Amino acid sequence: MIIVMSPAASAQSIDDVIGKIRAAGLSEHVSRGTERTIIGAVGDERSLQPSMFEMMPGVERALRVLKDYRIVSREVQPDNTVVHVRGLAIGGAAVQVIAGPCAVETAPQMQQAARLVREGGARLLRAGAFKPRTSPYSFQGLGVVGLDYLQEAARQQGLPVVSELMDIRLLDTFLEYDIDVIEIGARNMQNTDLLKEVGRINKPVILKRGLSATVSEWLMAAEYIAIGGNHNIIFCERGVRSFDPAARNTLDVTAIPLLKRETHLPVIVDPSHAGGKAWLVPALSCAALAAGADGLMLEVHPDPAQAWCDGDQALDGAAFGSLMAQLRPLAQVLGRSLA
Amino acid sequence: MIIVMSPAASAQSIDDVIGKIRAAGLSEHVSRGTERTIIGAVGDERSLQPSMFEMMPGVERALRVLKDYRIVSREVQPDNTVVHVRGLAIGGAAVQVIAGPCAVETAPQMQQAARLVREGGARLLRAGAFKPRTSPYSFQGLGVVGLDYLQEAARQQGLPVVSELMDIRLLDTFLEYDIDVIEIGARNMQNTDLLKEVGRINKPVILKRGLSATVSEWLMAAEYIAIGGNHNIIFCERGVRSFDPAARNTLDVTAIPLLKRETHLPVIVDPSHAGGKAWLVPALSCAALAAGADGLMLEVHPDPAQAWCDGDQALDGAAFGSLMAQLRPLAQVLGRSLA
Amino acid sequence: MIIVMSPAASAQSIDDVIGKIRAAGLSEHVSRGTERTIIGAVGDERSLQPSMFEMMPGVERALRVLKDYRIVSREVQPDNTVVHVRGLAIGGAAVQVIAGPCAVETAPQMQQAARLVREGGARLLRAGAFKPRTSPYSFQGLGVVGLDYLQEAARQQGLPVVSELMDIRLLDTFLEYDIDVIEIGARNMQNTDLLKEVGRINKPVILKRGLSATVSEWLMAAEYIAIGGNHNIIFCERGVRSFDPAARNTLDVTAIPLLKRETHLPVIVDPSHAGGKAWLVPALSCAALAAGADGLMLEVHPDPAQAWCDGDQALDGAAFGSLMAQLRPLAQVLGRSLA
Amino acid sequence: MIIVMSPAASAQSIDDVIGKIRAAGLSEHVSRGTERTIIGAVGDERSLQPSMFEMMPGVERALRVLKDYRIVSREVQPDNTVVHVRGLAIGGAAVQVIAGPCAVETAPQMQQAARLVREGGARLLRAGAFKPRTSPYSFQGLGVVGLDYLQEAARQQGLPVVSELMDIRLLDTFLEYDIDVIEIGARNMQNTDLLKEVGRINKPVILKRGLSATVSEWLMAAEYIAIGGNHNIIFCERGVRSFDPAARNTLDVTAIPLLKRETHLPVIVDPSHAGGKAWLVPALSCAALAAGADGLMLEVHPDPAQAWCDGDQALDGAAFGSLMAQLRPLAQVLGRSLA
Repeated sequence: MIIVMSPAASAQSIDDVIGKIRAAGLSEHVSRGTERTIIGAVGDERSLQPSMFEMMPGVERALRVLKDYRIVSREVQPDNTVVHVRGLAIGGAAVQVIAGPCAVETAPQMQQAARLVREGGARLLRAGAFKPRTSPYSFQGLGVVGLDYLQEAARQQGLPVVSELMDIRLLDTFLEYDIDVIEIGARNMQNTDLLKEVGRINKPVILKRGLSATVSEWLMAAEYIAIGGNHNIIFCERGVRSFDPAARNTLDVTAIPLLKRETHLPVIVDPSHAGGKAWLVPALSCAALAAGADGLMLEVHPDPAQAWCDGDQALDGAAFGSLMAQLRPLAQVLGRSLA
Repeated sequence: MIIVMSPAASAQSIDDVIGKIRAAGLSEHVSRGTERTIIGAVGDERSLQPSMFEMMPGVERALRVLKDYRIVSREVQPDNTVVHVRGLAIGGAAVQVIAGPCAVETAPQMQQAARLVREGGARLLRAGAFKPRTSPYSFQGLGVVGLDYLQEAARQQGLPVVSELMDIRLLDTFLEYDIDVIEIGARNMQNTDLLKEVGRINKPVILKRGLSATVSEWLMAAEYIAIGGNHNIIFCERGVRSFDPAARNTLDVTAIPLLKRETHLPVIVDPSHAGGKAWLVPALSCAALAAGADGLMLEVHPDPAQAWCDGDQALDGAAFGSLMAQLRPLAQVLGRSLA
Repeated sequence: MIIVMSPAASAQSIDDVIGKIRAAGLSEHVSRGTERTIIGAVGDERSLQPSMFEMMPGVERALRVLKDYRIVSREVQPDNTVVHVRGLAIGGAAVQVIAGPCAVETAPQMQQAARLVREGGARLLRAGAFKPRTSPYSFQGLGVVGLDYLQEAARQQGLPVVSELMDIRLLDTFLEYDIDVIEIGARNMQNTDLLKEVGRINKPVILKRGLSATVSEWLMAAEYIAIGGNHNIIFCERGVRSFDPAARNTLDVTAIPLLKRETHLPVIVDPSHAGGKAWLVPALSCAALAAGADGLMLEVHPDPAQAWCDGDQALDGAAFGSLMAQLRPLAQVLGRSLA
Repeated sequence: MIIVMSPAASAQSIDDVIGKIRAAGLSEHVSRGTERTIIGAVGDERSLQPSMFEMMPGVERALRVLKDYRIVSREVQPDNTVVHVRGLAIGGAAVQVIAGPCAVETAPQMQQAARLVREGGARLLRAGAFKPRTSPYSFQGLGVVGLDYLQEAARQQGLPVVSELMDIRLLDTFLEYDIDVIEIGARNMQNTDLLKEVGRINKPVILKRGLSATVSEWLMAAEYIAIGGNHNIIFCERGVRSFDPAARNTLDVTAIPLLKRETHLPVIVDPSHAGGKAWLVPALSCAALAAGADGLMLEVHPDPAQAWCDGDQALDGAAFGSLMAQLRPLAQVLGRSLA
């Protein structure tokens, strides 16, 4: 922590700051400049908050030097973490594609979707049985029976499954249904009780970025999971909120190299939710891979025009196949591979 | 729903749109302009989504005409709703002040805080036993024992209590401890399972605005609660995320008249979280009342410098008293009263 | 400037940073912590940029300690500046209201508007002869003849005038027409050549905040004017861009106390552009005064339904009169006065 | 224009809206729904503003159907425009790279930079003689002599030049110095007088996106240029302002496919200003090409550590060469070429 005193700070104010640093078990380092005195707190500053000092008389600003996250930090673990899902590696040389419909609708719809997904070359199946919707009048998901349809379709095609958990009370159900990867959605990125619970299990977790979460807050949310012992965390960028209504969200590709520098964990991208329109998905998918993403999560539906939710952002089988054909040589030129 | 066709839309595309409208049980109204054809869907459009049409060939845009919320809408109930909390009216002529520390720390701290709050003229006591924090290394709240300290201190002063519920599994505990008003925090504004649960009880709910929630999304979140039968909902503006790091958040005073026009429910403001600094609280409190707020939620702590969280935004007893003295004549000139 | 070295920084990297500090004529202060070394640059850091250090090997971050603005800073001049316009004081005890139509349309429209403005109690007349419009197909203003109509109407009512200057080549024309206060619009807040030119004249300048300018950038824009010798600068908050389409812009009332702390210059508010709707203007005007604004700039039009631009945000004579009647007792209770 | 009446709108209100539509030379189409009446204005709606109707009694909302831009619109010209600069084609099969230092500093610096740029494979040289800076205490550019150094260095290497014009009074000087492509910077995207002037010349214009300009506003700014007769316009995405301080700006890759759909004009990307750090440039450059950009504008400096501005975002010769080697196979796999 660095504490910048105001020009008019008294000797007493400076002493008080020093006292507070010492009381927290750290030591101080005082630098008297021509205009201001600056005090450094030497030691583990994680017990300190800038606000503890900013409210003291004579203090202009307090700045944290260390980062608040450590388990997920690349400083602590310099090598990339590879997350394994039933033999599949996420975060290794291969780019992984997770695909499937927004929502589980019926058993036949899931079966068709799973077949399209496998035939197109994706290695994991996704679909939501519980849907977070802005309006209570929109379709809220099939519920538990949806997990059933999802697993049955996945097993027929030999695919591991990804599904979103919203309600902490359903974690046991997700484990019973053997959901391979638990997705924490954007609206729950700071639902800390949910994060703590999925931190205690041994299933990989996809942590989507909150709608206006900073990269630093997102890393802290991952730390909430990691602190419980579960280090199998995959970041998923899905667009952030912006001032421009031109697209549903703004895909933040810069977050990919930023995360890659800060953390050893894999980073994937959901271009379907980011753009909100099927015709935007190919350009955004290519941009995500080119920026260094370890995988993609795509919405694929056998008949988007009949989809029960978000049909306008889903690819049909043909569009999905054509996108995969476009992505394979791109992955290769980027030094990666795609199944 | 209004569907705007593209200039090149074929007759077949127009027929397909009409077919989809009829299939949903509505009827169409077709307007052929010089450049474009526009189709209106006549009937209850809540079963339709713009995306259902925007993905069809020849469709340029689809626009919703009706609003997605109804129970909370002023169209449905033109008169103001007054929410009653143990005899206190929120949303009536009196401006209500809810005050207390960010977090319950110790029994004596709560007792001192409660006394300050009552002596200063606030009528409800607030404090968090469970704290949503960005970092898992920050103080997470005392937990259930905090509810105990809070209620004991409140009863000594004869004040009803407000406290934040984060974990759906703790709702019964909140009811056992007879927490008078349940606060849903900004991070949980779209935790729909939590919203549904508090919609089934008969305690008033303060619904804080999500960090970057639109007014429309906020109204929909309230509708999630209202649909369960609990109409005792109080909106609380607490600042939104912006591009400017100059303050913790940007207090959106415009949201106050916007909500007042759209909904019959009361609107209060939390200037402490909005500004993030105690010295900003008086100006923001005055602005909130002047813009039409029905109340304020203020952080007050007997010794902010020793607070376990967010001390820099808390008022001490003297500052609180002085702010209340400033607010009383202001409320009066605005045609309201303040205890 | 504080330079935070990365944990792995070599002794050579530290020496290089010290060398760069000395080369810039400052001296260094080195603090070796348990995890990182922190180097302070002691002296006038305005010649340094954080980027000069952040690109050096072993440097994690560089942080500026001093602020970039000085003439407009309250550190340099603790007392409030009062800007005088033909005998009127802006920034003193009286709250000043500037009112008038968005655009000059015709001589009779300006005459009616000027009468309404004076009768309603405003002390300055505003209207644009040159209009910055998003679309080239929208009305661009009458041009020079508009200045003529404006001044004629203003003189009939004995009011000083405010008008927006967009094109640097028209500054002489504005001086010829004796425009009393030159307004720099939001789109030109960082048009630095224009700022430099109005810094060389001796007319007061209203500097509107850019659509997404930080308070710090805004202060720097004012410094561009001040550095030329013209210190008669009035800040005008007019709403910032946000993610929420519910209102045209988000009025940032927090900017008022923030500016009041950082600068000695007056701060006024334009609630008409902020909200974008006439019905929002009273609530936003009251909020602005309550937050400490020194004045308001209001759109008033004799017949808003026939206005050539932005009619939906203009007050008619009756609404303006009623708002002024509402503001007078409010100003008084806030310890100010209103004509 | 579609006008949505409120549920309670009277027959008189509906008649008044119809009257206003007819007065503007359009005709109406009235659709009476179960809850609301909706009125379409049939004809060229560009003379109408939503605000003209939204202020009328009984009107809930007015929505524009047509877009405000036409010359730059793909509806008007379906084929891609290729902009030619001294024999080079921008917007064709080849991806073009524009490179050079942020600012002209000295004649030798420009000569070294120009050599690096040509040797690295870029085909146009960029450098600023006039710099828009946030602080008046930062280096403001060499001025006219900078244009001299720039042209001399460019001619030695046989490269066309790009330079930013900020001050409308300097347009003739830019023409005298035969600057091949005039850049309009982010801060001037809505400096409409400047846009109108560059619309009258026959030099290509690079129009950078304003810091928080919507795609629609950006297209309108281009229309301001096009309306004067100059259709040689190149859009340049350079990052938008966001809530996250993690990077200087947020590169909006989604804007690339959005623009490609809306306009026939070329789109390039400036990853240097977007990310603000040299180490981010390769990932962002790859993402931009993958999303469909027609070119890149890169900051390259012979010695970034000694640069007079923005050194931390400039590539040195080696990093530039290495990036170009990375981009060539990427361009090829995307079906384009790179010199």
